[in-house]
This record gives sequence, structure tokens and C-alpha cells, in this order.
Amino acid sequence: MNSRIKNILSRLKEEGLDGFIVSSAHNISYLTETRSRDAYLIVSAKERVYLTDARYTEEFKKKLKGFSLRKIDTSVFSIIADILQELKLRRVGFEDMHLSVSQHQRLSRQCRRRIKLVPVRNLVEDLREIKDRDEVAKIRVATDIAMQALRHIRKFILPGKRELEIAAELEHFIRYKGGHSSSFEIIVASGANSSFPHHLTSSRRLRDNEPVLIDMGVDYSGYKSDLTRVFFLGKIKPSVREVYDIVAEAQGRALKRIRPAVIINKIDRAARQYITRQGYGGFFSHNLGHGIGLEVHESPRIRPAEKARLKAGMVFTVEPAIYLPDKFGIRLEDMVLVTTKGVEVLSGALDK
Amino acid sequence: MNSRIKNILSRLKEEGLDGFIVSSAHNISYLTETRSRDAYLIVSAKERVYLTDARYTEEFKKKLKGFSLRKIDTSVFSIIADILQELKLRRVGFEDMHLSVSQHQRLSRQCRRRIKLVPVRNLVEDLREIKDRDEVAKIRVATDIAMQALRHIRKFILPGKRELEIAAELEHFIRYKGGHSSSFEIIVASGANSSFPHHLTSSRRLRDNEPVLIDMGVDYSGYKSDLTRVFFLGKIKPSVREVYDIVAEAQGRALKRIRPAVIINKIDRAARQYITRQGYGGFFSHNLGHGIGLEVHESPRIRPAEKARLKAGMVFTVEPAIYLPDKFGIRLEDMVLVTTKGVEVLSGALDK
Repeated sequence: MNSRIKNILSRLKEEGLDGFIVSSAHNISYLTETRSRDAYLIVSAKERVYLTDARYTEEFKKKLKGFSLRKIDTSVFSIIADILQELKLRRVGFEDMHLSVSQHQRLSRQCRRRIKLVPVRNLVEDLREIKDRDEVAKIRVATDIAMQALRHIRKFILPGKRELEIAAELEHFIRYKGGHSSSFEIIVASGANSSFPHHLTSSRRLRDNEPVLIDMGVDYSGYKSDLTRVFFLGKIKPSVREVYDIVAEAQGRALKRIRPAVIINKIDRAARQYITRQGYGGFFSHNLGHGIGLEVHESPRIRPAEKARLKAGMVFTVEPAIYLPDKFGIRLEDMVLVTTKGVEVLSGALDK
Repeated sequence: MNSRIKNILSRLKEEGLDGFIVSSAHNISYLTETRSRDAYLIVSAKERVYLTDARYTEEFKKKLKGFSLRKIDTSVFSIIADILQELKLRRVGFEDMHLSVSQHQRLSRQCRRRIKLVPVRNLVEDLREIKDRDEVAKIRVATDIAMQALRHIRKFILPGKRELEIAAELEHFIRYKGGHSSSFEIIVASGANSSFPHHLTSSRRLRDNEPVLIDMGVDYSGYKSDLTRVFFLGKIKPSVREVYDIVAEAQGRALKRIRPAVIINKIDRAARQYITRQGYGGFFSHNLGHGIGLEVHESPRIRPAEKARLKAGMVFTVEPAIYLPDKFGIRLEDMVLVTTKGVEVLSGALDK
């Protein structure tokens, strides 16, 4: 039994549950240390059962260790109910954020009256907040390939190139370097397009004397990276330079405050207050950052309302920004690991 | 008001609903004719309200026509409840397949007692089954780029190349041709890897005298294609050739039966019975095909249990296969459009 399963079993005990139905593909990937999709997992002290359909059973027969495999060949919820019955589970948790109203209804109908389904939330997600050594190693590779890609792309940033072509080159490079794929749709936002926080990369051609914002990341063995840099074609206008420097300074101020036990909202505040004092408070419209690992966006959220404290092993982005509608936008995004002593900027070797 | 919204409004009337909360990003994309994510849509005869967060509001202010825009700045469910109240809606449908148990609980808590939330299923999905002219045009482009990519890739299929490098080249080509991205993780499965129906593309190197299965598709303006071909390095072994020919013949038999009003399971049966009669019945472990459009897998499912009838305007894949564990697998996948007279193979210009 792997240590992640052990942790979940002890959490289940605390919650007075003797079984747990995991339906989030990311949570299943975490608990089984595989890349899972279209699967369910039943966790109990007696047995761990992995359910998937015919497309994946052959592959997972070989990959899974410490789990029994059951093929989904009829209604998945009737199979789950049968397994709960066989294992004599009575109080069974389900992930209320990862089961739809309709799935829950079908499951409830299949479960005998003796089985009580109990909604649980963040049971696995909470464990995933703190990365173990193996996870940090994978995130380092994902970050390293992304940094290489951003260095590589400089020479393609030329007037006349299309945003989509830049994205194509990045995607290509990532795969040649052993990344599985980009971890989300690569954003290449040139000129005024950079003023949209999540621009959809288009066939617009780059022009002289404008900024090009690139937000990209890599999936390596299921673990993600996420970095943003702004490049310049030709001359940087002083008005753009000014905003750039404010964002960079805001990021530096946030990074300096990161260490275990600090309340998370203080990190967000360090960047946000500086931007506000410089007169751009209305133009930084999102959170400062987000946890990252198996998902690009996961816990913890680095936001004004977050009162939890940082812990060693957390990995998250720090991405202050200023968006000036119809003009341009600047966002700088790095990834950090909270260490026992303070912080390590995982993307620290990448120029800004 | 666009015709898709008009169709939904008349469906709502039939169901006795005066409002509808749409939470599926694909359904929202369909109804608004945009590429949407992280959004909700409220549909009523009085008003259509699009909700999204600060990352997207500027962009959608320009894109949306016939919808009012509301920024999500506090709890989304309290904003939705407020809007339902303002519009005086009383019986409001929600998508029970696209709202989690936890979201539904939060929404219910916010809604005044006077608002009755009613679970509905497939309201938009049913409309999406029949593609309109604009949708077919986009699917044609997505299919055409995928065909070009599969022709282009032949010259890269060489001993020593890695599966991931082939995928990288395809991804790159797609984007240069104006595709937004691949529509799912490209599958490049060489040698025995092809025996897994959904192999995860690896760093394995291609070898002489083995098959290479490539399953890939393109996203063009939100619309998807999905095609599979098997290439051969060096000589084709007679045992592989035999299986290949059976799969090709099975596909031909299925294609021949496609026309409006045919019961869907007959299409599946035409291919499956042939494969079974040739002695490979146990090795074709999935459905014959699936609808495709805004999603890679959508309604209709071309499967043994499907008793609905084909209708003109449906677009789906036809992908018989034989997987021989630890040996190899053959799958051939084409895309078809049901026409008023019969069938058009959208990928017909691609060699098998």
C-alpha cells in the first residue's frame, strides 16, 4: 500500500467513513501514481479497486500496484454498488465536487439502503497541496523544459510571424525535449491582445515596437508548469517600460515574503498594494497566483481572501499583472516551492 | 436572438420552464456561438445573461451579440440567484450532468424558496446532434487539416524516430495550417503499443517491420475532427495484413448502411458481426463510433445498444478495430456526415 493511500485511509477513519469513491481523474492519478482518466477508484482498508473501461484495462493491468482492477462493462454505478456491497462498506464518502447531480442520483439509486453515501470535499486535494520529493522532481523537469522553450522562442519573435506560429513552435519544442505536451492552450498575445488576461492565440501577425506576452507550460509525467514572459519587438515605449517595471517590482515584493507559516493573503497583498500605490490598482484583476501540480490550477489559491498559512512543500505561481484595456498588458509569472527555510524560485534561472 | 437560443426557448416552454442555467462550457459555446470557458449562461425569454470572470469580460464584451454580460466578482451562485430573482423566474432548469453535487447545493441555498430548480438533461446536447451549415463547414476544415497532417506525416515515419517526435511534428503542422490545436492528445502507438486502444504516446522508438497507429484530430474554431490510420514500416507481416483487411472491410460494411432513419445499432452491428464472423469478436472492445462536433465525443453514440435513428446532419466517426494483446492493434477511423440522401465520408479523400 503506498503512503498516499495510507494517508487517505487515516483521513477516512477520522471522518468515520469505511469507504471512499474517488471520481476526480486527478485525485485518482495521485492516489494510484498513474496517469488516469475515465476511471473510478474505491478505497477501503480491505481493498482498493480501480475501475476503468476496455480501452484502458490492458494497460492498467500492468501499471497498477496494490490495486485490484475491475472492467466497466455495464453501468458503472451498479458495479460500484456491487463492490461496496461485497466489501461490506456502510458509510462511504463520495467527492461532491467531482460527481454530477445526475451521477449522484444514479449511484444513490443503485446503493442498497444499508449503504450511506456521505459528501466529502478536498480530502485528496488537501494532501496534494504538499508535494513530495517525487512530485517536486517532476515539476522541476516540467519547469525546466518550459524555461528552455521560452529561451528558444526568442529568435522566432519577429515582425510578420503569426501568434499561432509562435505557439506551434513552442509546442513542437516541448515535445522534442520530452515534455508530454503543453499543459494548457499556449497564450501568445501580441500588441493590444496582451491586454486580455486570457487571450485566445490568433492568426494576428506580430508588429514592430509592441510587446508579445507568452503564457505557457509543460506537462511532464502528469505534472505541470506555468510561466509567463513578455518579449518586445524593436523599441520599448517608456509607458510600457514603466508598467513592466512596476509588475516586476510587485513580483519581487511578493517573492520576498514567501516562507512557511506566513498567511497566504499577505503574499497577494505585498504585490497588490504596490501596484495600487503606483496608480494601477484597478488594472490587476485576478489573484496573484495558484497552486500547481497535477492540475494547472489547484490549491492553494494565492488571493486576498486566503487566510490559510503557507507550508513547506507547497508549489505555486506568482503572477502579478497590469492590463490596460485596448492598449497592452504585462504579466510576469514564476513558479515557487516553499522550502523549510523560505522559498526557491523554480523558474529563477529564467531572465525577466 | 440567434436560432439556437430560439430552439432552446421553445424546448423550455415544452418543459414548463421559464428559465435555464447552462453550466456546460460546450453548451454555452454552442448557444452563444463563441469559444467559452469558465462561464455560466442564464436563458429566459426576457433576457440572456452571460456570466464570466475578470479574465474574460473585456474579450466577451466585444464578442457577444444578443447577450448581456455580468462579471463574476463574488460567489457565482449568489449572482445567479440574484439574476433569477431580478428576471422573476420561477421554474428554472439546470443541467444535472454538468453541475456537481456541491455546486447544486450552493445554488439551492442561494435561491429563494420561490425559485424551483428543475434537473434537465441533454436539452442542448440533443440540438447539437444535428449540425447546421456553419458547423459542418468548420468540421470540414478541421477534417481537412487532419487529412493533410496524416499525409504530411508519412515521411517522418522512420525507424529510430520516437512516438513523441511524430506527435510533435503533427501538432506543429496542424497549427501552421491554421488549426487551433490538436483536438485531443495525439496517439502514436508503434509495435505492440498499438494493441492498447488508448495508448499514451511514449518515447519508444519506431522499429522496422511494425505497424504505427496514429489517432489524431484538429480543433478548428472550436469544432473537432478525429481520424485514425495505421502506417507500416518496412514489410507488412501477412498476419497483420489479414487483420488490417478485416477491419477495412468491416468499416466498409458499416459505411454502406448509413442513411437517415436507419436504427443506429444496425451500423455498429454491420461492422461487429463481420469482425466476429472472421473470428476476432473478442478483440473489438469498444463502440463503433461517436458523434463529434464541439466535443470529440458527443451524441450520438454508435453502439450496440443504441436504438435511436440516424438523422440528416449528424456527424460521427466510424472506427472498427481489432486489438491483439501484446501483439498489435489495427483501428481505422473516418468521419461521416449523414446527408438527406445517404452518407458523405468527410475524410473520404484520405487513403487507407
